[in-house]
Amino acid sequence: MKKQATIIGLGLIGGSMALDLRASGFAATLVGVDAHEGNEGKALSRRLVDQIATLDEAIPAADVVILAIPVDAIRKVLPAVLDRIKIDAVVIDTGSTKAAVCVAASTHNLRSRFVAAHPIAGTENSGPEAAIHDLFRNKVNIICEREKTAPDAMQVAEACFASLGMHTTFMDPGEHDKHVAYVSHLSHVSSFLLGQTVLDIERDEKKIFNLAGSGLASTVRLAKSSPDMWAPIFEQNAAHLLQALREYIAHLQRFHDALESGDKGSVHEMLTRANEIRRVLQGIELNDKKSTTATIEK
Amino acid sequence: MKKQATIIGLGLIGGSMALDLRASGFAATLVGVDAHEGNEGKALSRRLVDQIATLDEAIPAADVVILAIPVDAIRKVLPAVLDRIKIDAVVIDTGSTKAAVCVAASTHNLRSRFVAAHPIAGTENSGPEAAIHDLFRNKVNIICEREKTAPDAMQVAEACFASLGMHTTFMDPGEHDKHVAYVSHLSHVSSFLLGQTVLDIERDEKKIFNLAGSGLASTVRLAKSSPDMWAPIFEQNAAHLLQALREYIAHLQRFHDALESGDKGSVHEMLTRANEIRRVLQGIELNDKKSTTATIEK
Repeated sequence: MKKQATIIGLGLIGGSMALDLRASGFAATLVGVDAHEGNEGKALSRRLVDQIATLDEAIPAADVVILAIPVDAIRKVLPAVLDRIKIDAVVIDTGSTKAAVCVAASTHNLRSRFVAAHPIAGTENSGPEAAIHDLFRNKVNIICEREKTAPDAMQVAEACFASLGMHTTFMDPGEHDKHVAYVSHLSHVSSFLLGQTVLDIERDEKKIFNLAGSGLASTVRLAKSSPDMWAPIFEQNAAHLLQALREYIAHLQRFHDALESGDKGSVHEMLTRANEIRRVLQGIELNDKKSTTATIEK
Repeated sequence: MKKQATIIGLGLIGGSMALDLRASGFAATLVGVDAHEGNEGKALSRRLVDQIATLDEAIPAADVVILAIPVDAIRKVLPAVLDRIKIDAVVIDTGSTKAAVCVAASTHNLRSRFVAAHPIAGTENSGPEAAIHDLFRNKVNIICEREKTAPDAMQVAEACFASLGMHTTFMDPGEHDKHVAYVSHLSHVSSFLLGQTVLDIERDEKKIFNLAGSGLASTVRLAKSSPDMWAPIFEQNAAHLLQALREYIAHLQRFHDALESGDKGSVHEMLTRANEIRRVLQGIELNDKKSTTATIEK
């Protein structure tokens, strides 16, 4: 049976989900909710959703409610959303941190209708204009606290993510938050502050950017990401991210000290050890290739 | 008149130059020199050069000698190369640091035949197999100490880089080294050590990389770069790079402290300020687009 889906937050994630939930046939009707007035018009003109509604109108009518808003807003709004759903509806969040939202849902009498998910996909762009088809295809989706969700609700969520072309796996929320601190959140912090360092020197020395090439573009790309989305992620995942950040700073400091003291052996060794990241990148590229192939074959 | 060009170092940079110096008609004959035996066979089988020779054979016959080897090797070999060239030949280096090589050439009686250049282009790959057409098209080439090169030698060098599709500008070597420390070398250090931090946690926690997406791939891409090429660059540019690195670490530490103390205003403000990097990235993307168009129009 095709679903009526309500998507709260019509930006990169919510908008891209809307596009493919419709394309895959998972959703018959799509209703959008967005706190930014400008976003509603953009989402309608791009036909991301069929109609715009308020939370109060949209929740009781939905078979599936998807929360695609900043993680602090998810935590705040989740209990109120669960208060108003149809008895057999399913609420799915898409936040990049999972422990805090699981706590926010834990004592609700409809906890079993909630699915704590993190579909791992994105770009550095934001807003309804950033929504694209196949953003999620062949990417990994994590679901946490599977055992606290009713089996029928879990089936709906798995069908939802499968319709986007995602592979769903299951993790403990704390384990999830620790790992994404290293493989995602730290990358973003590293990129934001690298961007800031480069902007600082530009202020003093004009026109240095004709010297910038694709290397800089690649490493600071994530510094374009939305602060409204990322500041709450960093705050909710502070414990793990602070630890990752301390380890990163310690590595940078060790490299600094080796370079300063002219210890060529250590400098070369650190770079050689980091080269091992090739193995990891090959895995990611392999997934991207599968994704491209899948898109072409569609 | 078409030139006989000798390219010392047949990796990403030397090999890619060879491809386009032939394609553009700048070089009639290409002779390759490479200290790694395996590279010679690869370069010949990819037809990057017409023949392989030793330094002693290749230098006296060349109209143009291009040095595309690590910057410590450039500094070491440059005087010996100048010792052996034809009286009207031109020697061009392509290193990512310029002060040290300018010093190495400064007292040579054939200083006026030398052009200190930095064609700013590259990928994270290395070796003859990494050589590609159009690597340099629409990119910026920096020449330092223009006034110490003879006008006719400078004409040859400018024609050489123009044949690759590059835009040449002129800078003081110290100014060059300071600026590339921020817009290139720091990006590489940031990426190498981010790669290391992520590899460390993987050693303890298996299978975290199914959580890694395109964000990590983008920020750690440069960590795949050749240590043999980059360690000497970092060492020759240590003074400027250490300063850039200290500023980067200070920014990371400030972010860490704001996050740790729950100072949400500062966290959000730091991310918002870094967003301004969009302006810089648009410039780089604009150049890349021009490059793509140029390639198609060829």
